[in-house]
Amino acid sequence: MKRNSLSDRYCPIARSGAQLVDGWTLIILRDLLFGPKKFRDLEEQTGMSPRSLTLRLNALVEDDIIAKVKGEETGKRHAYKLTEKGRDLWPVIMTLKHWGERWNGPWVDDEAPVKTSHKGHEFHVEVSCSCCHEPVDMFSIESEMSKPLREDMEHMAKLYAERLKK
Amino acid sequence: MKRNSLSDRYCPIARSGAQLVDGWTLIILRDLLFGPKKFRDLEEQTGMSPRSLTLRLNALVEDDIIAKVKGEETGKRHAYKLTEKGRDLWPVIMTLKHWGERWNGPWVDDEAPVKTSHKGHEFHVEVSCSCCHEPVDMFSIESEMSKPLREDMEHMAKLYAERLKK
Repeated sequence: MKRNSLSDRYCPIARSGAQLVDGWTLIILRDLLFGPKKFRDLEEQTGMSPRSLTLRLNALVEDDIIAKVKGEETGKRHAYKLTEKGRDLWPVIMTLKHWGERWNGPWVDDEAPVKTSHKGHEFHVEVSCSCCHEPVDMFSIESEMSKPLREDMEHMAKLYAERLKK
Repeated sequence: MKRNSLSDRYCPIARSGAQLVDGWTLIILRDLLFGPKKFRDLEEQTGMSPRSLTLRLNALVEDDIIAKVKGEETGKRHAYKLTEKGRDLWPVIMTLKHWGERWNGPWVDDEAPVKTSHKGHEFHVEVSCSCCHEPVDMFSIESEMSKPLREDMEHMAKLYAERLKK
């Protein structure tokens, strides 16, 4: 049953997970945030094998997260660049960067590998409310499930009950 | 050479990618954000096979992102809950949720599967500057690579040059 795959769940995190998340895919996106890159530049900086890199680039193109471009700036070889959908991943990658800085060191002199500044001051990203712009965290918000999501969860519960019977 | 693996790169995104990113892992974390869960609850709601779920739970425990707990609230069976490091992933998951809502629909009536509210108003997360709290995007910030990161990149370039010679 295809229904049981991530891309069919009624959940933006599940569907995004299906399209995106793989450690190697993330570092490709990280590199493309700094501008279009040729295959060999990505190969060099990620350390991936050509086969492994090709697989992930093709999947990203298929999901419209990156696009192949040809142009004067890239010479004869084509390059890969982020689409609007891909650029829109910036907040995800930046929050992951900050998490990694905090938890996955050590870093030499406790300095972030890439320092970011905004209007001249050093900063890291934090998440805030799109409505009142105050910082938010998991304890300051409320969540409410929509009806189609509840139905999706009931469906999963039913599938599970059937699996247990077998 | 182990050096060529994600967890050894001088980059918080690469190291976090190595620890974390796998679509199924993300939905486990999503479910644990709502509180501790027993194995069978996770099995039901994620739709994963016991083997696949066990593999990912063990990896998350090893990386100190979740912990096994025993207690009155969970009955005789143990449960899994987020550690501080795990809870700190909330901004990553929320920015991914918002990206998925925007790009990975359709959603019934164009409504987010889970609506979030903050002090009574509906919102989604946006990223802002930890220093001045203004919203930030990829065009409003500057990045500067640290010396150890530049060295890591030079090392990757050298490895690549050696691979090309073979």
